[in-house]
Amino acid sequence: MNVQKVELHEVGPREGFQFEGIGQPEKIPTTRKVELVQALATTGLRKIQVTSFVSPKQVPQMADAEEVSRRLQPVSGLEYDCVYLNDKGLERALNAGIYTIEGHVSLSASEAFSKRNQNRTLAEDIEMQRRQLHLYRANNIPIEGGRLMAAFGCNYEGDIPLSRVIDLVVIMHDLIAEGGGQFRELQLADTMGWADPESVTRTVHAVRSRWPELKLSLHLHDTRGAGLANFYAGLESGVTKFDTSVGGLGGCPFAQTVGGNICTEDVVFMCERMGVETGVHFERLIECSRLAEDIVGHVLPSRMSHAWGSAAT
Amino acid sequence: MNVQKVELHEVGPREGFQFEGIGQPEKIPTTRKVELVQALATTGLRKIQVTSFVSPKQVPQMADAEEVSRRLQPVSGLEYDCVYLNDKGLERALNAGIYTIEGHVSLSASEAFSKRNQNRTLAEDIEMQRRQLHLYRANNIPIEGGRLMAAFGCNYEGDIPLSRVIDLVVIMHDLIAEGGGQFRELQLADTMGWADPESVTRTVHAVRSRWPELKLSLHLHDTRGAGLANFYAGLESGVTKFDTSVGGLGGCPFAQTVGGNICTEDVVFMCERMGVETGVHFERLIECSRLAEDIVGHVLPSRMSHAWGSAAT
Repeated sequence: MNVQKVELHEVGPREGFQFEGIGQPEKIPTTRKVELVQALATTGLRKIQVTSFVSPKQVPQMADAEEVSRRLQPVSGLEYDCVYLNDKGLERALNAGIYTIEGHVSLSASEAFSKRNQNRTLAEDIEMQRRQLHLYRANNIPIEGGRLMAAFGCNYEGDIPLSRVIDLVVIMHDLIAEGGGQFRELQLADTMGWADPESVTRTVHAVRSRWPELKLSLHLHDTRGAGLANFYAGLESGVTKFDTSVGGLGGCPFAQTVGGNICTEDVVFMCERMGVETGVHFERLIECSRLAEDIVGHVLPSRMSHAWGSAAT
Repeated sequence: MNVQKVELHEVGPREGFQFEGIGQPEKIPTTRKVELVQALATTGLRKIQVTSFVSPKQVPQMADAEEVSRRLQPVSGLEYDCVYLNDKGLERALNAGIYTIEGHVSLSASEAFSKRNQNRTLAEDIEMQRRQLHLYRANNIPIEGGRLMAAFGCNYEGDIPLSRVIDLVVIMHDLIAEGGGQFRELQLADTMGWADPESVTRTVHAVRSRWPELKLSLHLHDTRGAGLANFYAGLESGVTKFDTSVGGLGGCPFAQTVGGNICTEDVVFMCERMGVETGVHFERLIECSRLAEDIVGHVLPSRMSHAWGSAAT
């Protein structure tokens, strides 16, 4: 293993509570959302994704995005970030005042998914990215990244060919240049959990051979059981930045269509066994995972939070 | 990926029902155990581990080992096997008449685990192996293999040094030679789920560099989340034979001390995505996983059985 250290970006509060809320608006009280974020801030994690500024009509469980942001007491030295899918969301995120806003373009490798998630075709999405780039510039936010959703497969389209991934990264590159930015970092997102270790390795190598200077990060879901294998394949390929989710929040063991993100504590434990540094205080993280289970009211996919404390673990 | 095909050894009925029964003797009726084995026999799996011939006092849920064996209607072309921990168990297994009995020696890399599981010190275990080897010879069963439990770590001892693994394989080698056998195959078992992808790779390479002709197989548990990552690391290292468990049977999401084996359907799906042949009919396997959930009466760790049927899967 050449990697000695990884950066973990905790996305549980956003991805998890968004998912948990499906069909159950206001299931999770604002205070409890804030409670989890505050607890995560004590674990050594450096960056926590808090909420989504999306349509309260489409995603009622994120209707308290402003309220969560207001109640949060940011810990100095930590970064908080959030999700938005259009210029309106970006304006709300900017107004919240506590978020690290990274100027980036975001596209989906599956147009079918884009229509469902962003309600836009690829052409419309490109136009929306231009509007967002304009907003970043107007707010003096450097434009430095791209994020590609559904980069490994799609529930509606099936496999995503690698050539399409490359084509879309080219489009991102042009958009960022057009917006006066510099393309420094690319996130490849396995939004619906279709990746396998070989496709992770193949995609990372293809992107890196074309854009050797680009820093890569991975957003992985454990929908089909390969989550940590994909994480390991990413590490082996030299990726050092990953989104993870406490408890494996984001999935439901009973009726999952989109499984949770790879679980923060399972990733941290595996890294520790391999001598890869995460900077995370493991026992505090386990407490957060148990808190998350208490908040959602059911067992989460995490293996470590259930194994920890038994036997010699 | 150099591996084009894997052999999967289904251990769910034995490992799972043994685990499920802890503290709840006779929880699972014999008819339902047989039902699962019969269903698994239609999936394309070539070898199924059915039961354990162990002390009914120590493991009451396996007290029906003879009855399960009697009721089973073996499908021609399939192999059925079983577990035993001493010469008495081996005699019972031989008497059952339906099992493929592989002459082998079995040791534990952790003496603390050996004392708990087999109720023997290493020295006593070596003596027991000699008694078993004698029985194999008396029954004209070729002696060709070794199995090493707790090869990657132990709940009672923690890490297991690689040097101890090598020392024990040397002992196995000598025992097999002494018994007139030939050491052709070694199973490395991560009995308590302590392996990580790097330790799998390191151990496989160390054993192979010393005994290049030895066929290796892996028995992996997903106690700490790294199960499929370890499977992938094994594949990458050229291992082609694995124990897996339908539904991920063997673990309980509520109070696991020993998590389930790596889940057969998650392994099969990942293999299919990577073009690695398993010979398994996927939909029939998913039906078996759902049957297993029905039998144990709670959600099993499998990801694929919950994702399958939703969206494009």
